Amino acid sequence: MTPTRVVAFGGGHGLSASLRALRHCVPGLDLDITAVVTVGDDGGSSGRLRAERGGLPPGDLRQALVALAGDHPATRRSAALFQHRFAASAPAPTPAAPVASGAGDPLVGHAVGNLLLHGLTELLGDPVAALDHAGAMLGAVGRVLPMSRQPVGIEARVRAVDPAHPDEVRTVRGQHQVAVTSGTVESLRLTPAAPAACAEAVTAVRAADWLIFGPGSWYTSVLPHLLVPGLADAIVSSPARRLVTLNLVAEKETSGLSLPDHLDTLRRYLPELKVDMVLADSTAVGDPAAVERAAESLGARLVLAPVAVTDGTPRHDPAALGAALVPVLGADR
Amino acid sequence: MTPTRVVAFGGGHGLSASLRALRHCVPGLDLDITAVVTVGDDGGSSGRLRAERGGLPPGDLRQALVALAGDHPATRRSAALFQHRFAASAPAPTPAAPVASGAGDPLVGHAVGNLLLHGLTELLGDPVAALDHAGAMLGAVGRVLPMSRQPVGIEARVRAVDPAHPDEVRTVRGQHQVAVTSGTVESLRLTPAAPAACAEAVTAVRAADWLIFGPGSWYTSVLPHLLVPGLADAIVSSPARRLVTLNLVAEKETSGLSLPDHLDTLRRYLPELKVDMVLADSTAVGDPAAVERAAESLGARLVLAPVAVTDGTPRHDPAALGAALVPVLGADR
Repeated sequence: MTPTRVVAFGGGHGLSASLRALRHCVPGLDLDITAVVTVGDDGGSSGRLRAERGGLPPGDLRQALVALAGDHPATRRSAALFQHRFAASAPAPTPAAPVASGAGDPLVGHAVGNLLLHGLTELLGDPVAALDHAGAMLGAVGRVLPMSRQPVGIEARVRAVDPAHPDEVRTVRGQHQVAVTSGTVESLRLTPAAPAACAEAVTAVRAADWLIFGPGSWYTSVLPHLLVPGLADAIVSSPARRLVTLNLVAEKETSGLSLPDHLDTLRRYLPELKVDMVLADSTAVGDPAAVERAAESLGARLVLAPVAVTDGTPRHDPAALGAALVPVLGADR
Repeated sequence: MTPTRVVAFGGGHGLSASLRALRHCVPGLDLDITAVVTVGDDGGSSGRLRAERGGLPPGDLRQALVALAGDHPATRRSAALFQHRFAASAPAPTPAAPVASGAGDPLVGHAVGNLLLHGLTELLGDPVAALDHAGAMLGAVGRVLPMSRQPVGIEARVRAVDPAHPDEVRTVRGQHQVAVTSGTVESLRLTPAAPAACAEAVTAVRAADWLIFGPGSWYTSVLPHLLVPGLADAIVSSPARRLVTLNLVAEKETSGLSLPDHLDTLRRYLPELKVDMVLADSTAVGDPAAVERAAESLGARLVLAPVAVTDGTPRHDPAALGAALVPVLGADR
């Protein structure tokens, strides 16, 4: 039997949750997992690397690789190394190195895996080759691809950034600034406006049995994929079924955006998009009838399941999300 | 049959040549290889890491790991990643990262493997655990250990640093400065004077069948091992046989030091040292009778073999050195 080919779209933590959930579907399902990752990050270690050295921001790609890392103790230790961030360090002066410069500690805050991915890309000359090798180093149970080989900027037109001017609409530039904006996002665009899709991602989408969108930061991790023309074409024309996993709570960038609104934005940015299933947490869903209507307008059936962790924090539980995905992904067409 | 346990001592390029030669002895010989590496480096990427963040200088440890890396294409690619140095990079400005600071490029010149070893040591809390994991990542065919868990300084009393004052003796501090000094080294010491030996290295030495010294920078890569009291004790009391592989040409730090002088320095810094074999290149040896006498004064037999590369550069050829080592290491006691 051929495996079920699943492509999961996202960015940071939400995509990791989705990938970890997919791992929980195995061995009940035989899955071939591909993660397609946004490349708009401009904050933190990724933002520094990108600004200082160019290339793709590696952080979200690293998170996806780690989510797929093998279970062997050695690959788990390598995954911990990828995640490790260089600590602030006050070395003991030695006779050979008597002057420890407090100012010069440029590694602090960088994740080792970010530097490794950046170095691999330099060495191999291609980010996809670098990701494939890093995946092999981690014994990854799936493939991680960027949505584009070129980094993108994310810009939003945002209303009421300043609460004192509730009707003023400003342009907010950069993924990090959009993610933390306090106003209401009115529209979103990438710069460049039409980046080239990663060819391997397009191929994976066209060959997929399932495409999974979300959970994740809607404007900065989920919707950007729909703004890459080559990827959007592949998503629309793929014979795959399409699943949207909704978030548990609104994040800062989506404050004021209800779950039905989340679904509506998908159609707004990719009007041809048809969806087969919408998965929402039974408790977080709020008004199920409204979500069901929004799902139906995309052509989708709403599935409710308990997919949040039980400690009250708004995080998906990979095991619970996986348990909810098994009957969905395993269902006959 | 149990493998022949070989411990090779050294620092940078010379130790790599020795380790690559040992690999060429396999499968003719069944070898269990351990490299014991100096920790005095204070130049380049290692020196920056050490000065800015503390810990062991990783460069020579990395070189030894790479020399032992597995032959599989994936582990060879990982070894290339360990060796890759971040290039100077002029990123294209992007809308999200419009200001590419030319000044801020602190990664340039760092070897990826140095950062990886430094991060692993932070993560695991111990340099030996870090080296063992890095070895596993590289599919290494042997183990790499530091001579001490603490970095050391190297200091030399050097005559005629300034040729205008041929009788003046100055203290030259730091491995890099000693390695490039233009005077004549009169004496060598470590700071601290008696660093603790790495316990795993002591254990390997006590259990070894062969201890191999050189080739390598004599003052900065070979002799420092003899100045670590715990290691010197283990070397003297080990039941192992001892082999010295002589250099092909004098380096800057050993200008004026003949091959017999090289052997004499071993006895000077560790008077109890007995040696079984001295291996020298048949062409580079110069006056074989003088080298033979110096070898005999250590208790050793001189073996001459063509072990240099044939292009005229003063480098050991791993295959030729390996071919010369097979009958030595395989000989019955």
